Amino acid sequence: MLEKLKVKDVMTRNVITVPPSEDVVFAFEKLMKHRVSSLPVVDNNDILVGIVTATDLGHNLILDNYELGTIVEKVMVKDVVYVSPEDDLLTTVQKMNEFGSENEIINQLVVIEDHEIKGIISDGDIIRAIKA
Amino acid sequence: MLEKLKVKDVMTRNVITVPPSEDVVFAFEKLMKHRVSSLPVVDNNDILVGIVTATDLGHNLILDNYELGTIVEKVMVKDVVYVSPEDDLLTTVQKMNEFGSENEIINQLVVIEDHEIKGIISDGDIIRAIKA
Repeated sequence: MLEKLKVKDVMTRNVITVPPSEDVVFAFEKLMKHRVSSLPVVDNNDILVGIVTATDLGHNLILDNYELGTIVEKVMVKDVVYVSPEDDLLTTVQKMNEFGSENEIINQLVVIEDHEIKGIISDGDIIRAIKA
Repeated sequence: MLEKLKVKDVMTRNVITVPPSEDVVFAFEKLMKHRVSSLPVVDNNDILVGIVTATDLGHNLILDNYELGTIVEKVMVKDVVYVSPEDDLLTTVQKMNEFGSENEIINQLVVIEDHEIKGIISDGDIIRAIKA
């Protein structure tokens, strides 16, 4: 069934982003306010340059691991794993696993086409698709 | 494939919990510290009485929606959706969808057997199982 569904069928289209210059505290507040688990980081031309997650920022802020005034650029993951809107969900699941660590998948992949961010797809979006 | 795998094959066994009397700020710090997205709430006899999520606590703390000194019991979800270790993953996916809202699944289900918490299973755990 996962081979038959495409990323564009289940992705979230309204993506909230953050600039590289944002303070990490403000980025974390943005994540919490919008109830999202990751924020793609985009430059002035809306080009994807990184990603930050609520899990990482929250963990490091609580443990006081960041110096005061730390910006997103300094802590973001730069090798962002992405898929195309035309990719199928099986490919997506495989990428979430392949690029994750041994015990943790990548829970959210950015969806890119022609160098533009078209959406974001999460493990939860895929679980929602399986039901149908 | 999901019909053939059981909850006990993919669940996380080491569950971090919180008592009902915990301050919501402390509960949120616990979630961040341990990089988990929900905490089952258990009473003195280790009986499950509710659940709190990082998304809910973080959202309401950032928006200053809680009075100072608010405890977990006051804000927890009391109708906790759970599965058995012997349930298959298709049943689990269906429950995540059925008990979620229109646009959001329940991302984590508590695993219960003989009134005891045996583990927790997330959408990510299921995505990890699909790969195999």
